[in-house]
Amino acid sequence: MSKAVYPGTFDPVTYGHLDVIRRGAQLFDSLVVSVAGSSVKSALFSVEERVTMMKLLTADLPNVTVASFDGLVIQHVRDLDSRIILRGIRTVGDFEYELQMALTNRNLDHSIETIFVMSSEKYSFVRSSTIKEAVRLGGDVVDMVPPLVADALKKKLRK
Amino acid sequence: MSKAVYPGTFDPVTYGHLDVIRRGAQLFDSLVVSVAGSSVKSALFSVEERVTMMKLLTADLPNVTVASFDGLVIQHVRDLDSRIILRGIRTVGDFEYELQMALTNRNLDHSIETIFVMSSEKYSFVRSSTIKEAVRLGGDVVDMVPPLVADALKKKLRK
Amino acid sequence: MSKAVYPGTFDPVTYGHLDVIRRGAQLFDSLVVSVAGSSVKSALFSVEERVTMMKLLTADLPNVTVASFDGLVIQHVRDLDSRIILRGIRTVGDFEYELQMALTNRNLDHSIETIFVMSSEKYSFVRSSTIKEAVRLGGDVVDMVPPLVADALKKKLRK
Amino acid sequence: MSKAVYPGTFDPVTYGHLDVIRRGAQLFDSLVVSVAGSSVKSALFSVEERVTMMKLLTADLPNVTVASFDGLVIQHVRDLDSRIILRGIRTVGDFEYELQMALTNRNLDHSIETIFVMSSEKYSFVRSSTIKEAVRLGGDVVDMVPPLVADALKKKLRK
Amino acid sequence: MSKAVYPGTFDPVTYGHLDVIRRGAQLFDSLVVSVAGSSVKSALFSVEERVTMMKLLTADLPNVTVASFDGLVIQHVRDLDSRIILRGIRTVGDFEYELQMALTNRNLDHSIETIFVMSSEKYSFVRSSTIKEAVRLGGDVVDMVPPLVADALKKKLRK
Amino acid sequence: MSKAVYPGTFDPVTYGHLDVIRRGAQLFDSLVVSVAGSSVKSALFSVEERVTMMKLLTADLPNVTVASFDGLVIQHVRDLDSRIILRGIRTVGDFEYELQMALTNRNLDHSIETIFVMSSEKYSFVRSSTIKEAVRLGGDVVDMVPPLVADALKKKLRK
Repeated sequence: MSKAVYPGTFDPVTYGHLDVIRRGAQLFDSLVVSVAGSSVKSALFSVEERVTMMKLLTADLPNVTVASFDGLVIQHVRDLDSRIILRGIRTVGDFEYELQMALTNRNLDHSIETIFVMSSEKYSFVRSSTIKEAVRLGGDVVDMVPPLVADALKKKLRK
Repeated sequence: MSKAVYPGTFDPVTYGHLDVIRRGAQLFDSLVVSVAGSSVKSALFSVEERVTMMKLLTADLPNVTVASFDGLVIQHVRDLDSRIILRGIRTVGDFEYELQMALTNRNLDHSIETIFVMSSEKYSFVRSSTIKEAVRLGGDVVDMVPPLVADALKKKLRK
Repeated sequence: MSKAVYPGTFDPVTYGHLDVIRRGAQLFDSLVVSVAGSSVKSALFSVEERVTMMKLLTADLPNVTVASFDGLVIQHVRDLDSRIILRGIRTVGDFEYELQMALTNRNLDHSIETIFVMSSEKYSFVRSSTIKEAVRLGGDVVDMVPPLVADALKKKLRK
Repeated sequence: MSKAVYPGTFDPVTYGHLDVIRRGAQLFDSLVVSVAGSSVKSALFSVEERVTMMKLLTADLPNVTVASFDGLVIQHVRDLDSRIILRGIRTVGDFEYELQMALTNRNLDHSIETIFVMSSEKYSFVRSSTIKEAVRLGGDVVDMVPPLVADALKKKLRK
Repeated sequence: MSKAVYPGTFDPVTYGHLDVIRRGAQLFDSLVVSVAGSSVKSALFSVEERVTMMKLLTADLPNVTVASFDGLVIQHVRDLDSRIILRGIRTVGDFEYELQMALTNRNLDHSIETIFVMSSEKYSFVRSSTIKEAVRLGGDVVDMVPPLVADALKKKLRK
Repeated sequence: MSKAVYPGTFDPVTYGHLDVIRRGAQLFDSLVVSVAGSSVKSALFSVEERVTMMKLLTADLPNVTVASFDGLVIQHVRDLDSRIILRGIRTVGDFEYELQMALTNRNLDHSIETIFVMSSEKYSFVRSSTIKEAVRLGGDVVDMVPPLVADALKKKLRK
């Protein structure tokens, strides 16, 4: 049974991430969305908050589960008895970074493969960092994140 | 049962292609390597020659079969009852082209997904067109293609 | 009164081109869409056919006119009493080519400026050459070109 | 009457920025150069200093005014009754970032368009961050910034 | 004694090429500028014409000689008792192509190294193919090639 | 006598750096590997530690010496009576940054040239920052750095 892991910071989850998750859920028997934990410096949302939001937003996908991890992503993938890392790519800038991470992970464990899907061109410009900045300055990000996330962002950033 | 299709010109097949095929054979229950036929202008080897070489070079992979196709790749994928296209990427230049093809194919048929694996960094510079040029000028391409292919290239290009 | 020129081959015009034209029509008092003529090798549609299609598809934009030109684009822009070339960019590959053309044109005539708008992300993958190939192989390009163009393509490519 | 806004940090203004301003001043009836204010973390010069330097360096351009802003750039552009953002691009790295910002701003307000001009190839390598580092280490940046800015940099960085 | 080879098509030689040659002449004890011969399809100038122009334009550089070659560039470099290939790079597009050629040549002969210098930013947009097109259409390329080359281009392309 | 300087942070030195050093040692009569000192923020290893490791790892190369520097790299190169900076490039992302630094340095001192070699494709993904992160999280980086460096990293990062 094929199982893939989609690791990320998801601070916060965007429509771009959800697009990748939906595509991954169709490609694999099961997909674990794994929220990177304490190794992420200065996340806006806690791991718990990010896991909770992700669970709510993927509840309609029966073969998707949500986890969190600390440490090396390849160790986490091994712990889940998987050997496939799923990632989305949108732009050349993404690609360079993702290529480097995939080759590094492959050198750390040759049995683990990273595969890439292209997210929808509609979300090619959507980035968590830009969204946070936009909300902080008063922008309306309804085209980029689900309402649940938009509300959480407003609460965090505009108190 | 997951089945993917790896389409390409393979004129000729390189160690880079074979690296992608080996990775694909591990990711999917079955993998069809599909040689693009008459739509390819001015191929050095005929479709039959390319299919034959590919069969010889993938004979040790029990879940890999070799086919050929004319026309739209998405139609070929549908005809094989698959909905997954596999492609390898190595460089930024590849990426731009592959992104465009993947998005075009997605727009032609929304049910078909292209997934990408990264071939080994050892083969990042290996390109069929460069190999043909090198052999034509007398170069030794033993690091880039299997002996079988190197011999076939010499016969074609140095008569 | 500001006047810009949008030069291109438009073989055929796509939704991406029309998106750039609509944006240009709002930025400038008048916009001339200029179809490159006999210097284009092996166009599918004649200059006359491309001008006719463009006129039909921009008829609702009162400040847009359609012209054709041979020779240097900067001479054509000068002949139209303009000094602004409008171009669309979508991808890094586009950008490199467009940068080089813009700098060459600036060196040929320092009084002429090229300005760029970004076309909608929805059309980032739409390319005339890919569309022609897709239609030739039997694909449905209704998401990429207007119906008028799709029909003309079918007539030309599937007889 | 066409009015554009050229937003930036300008910490400090370089010959590259001034090249973009001169091109923008010829393209539009009026151009507002807008210095990003308190949202910029750890600027070397205060907003007031950056506005003052910019005013001195654009004093010969009658249709250029200098402003500052906090918050979303699209809100600032609306406040100025403009709907055009002007930006310069020089390199592929710029392009990726600028593309993403332009698409984000378009999604935050569909009525606002970003247009790009290419700055002179002479200034393709000039970056405010590199200039500050060079001055700090004792370098002579006379080819990259006006004398007024070079003096201000020396005062700030070499006390 | 260090000796490098700068191979190219030089159809025709531009100020960008001459900039690379001047830099190379300072880096190495001797530099051979090598004009690619009959393997170049559809050159505008014959090998003899390109060698003659190159000799005239490098006559003031005592440690530069001009040669021509057919076949593999690595064989030519070996024949000259050199093991260094010199190339200029200007843009990301160049870089991808040059990286691939350098790695291919290294795989064909591990004793040969390609080194790169960056040509002046003033010539970053100068390309032989664009220059030929511009002259053919009546443009003035005096900022891109020496007068000798401009005259030769006019004779070839405007008869 | 040709002398080149290979400046870098080397925090820590990787197999990729050593590959560049070996190539540089063959290209030049002498090569100085120069460790950037106090201008580097938050290095893991002190300048002394980095110089010591570099000396141990290049002890078999008779024409390579190790130095350290503070301040502008061009001043350091002049102080060493050299005028050649050596750098390695692997990827498009590297290239953009290296191009900008080389052009900035050329503008700070026109007599200094930066030349580039391509490191082996085997090390294209090896980056000091990624290696530190991998070791911190428990990864085995034996394919990316010499044993001496791997041990030093473990001591620093896993206490």
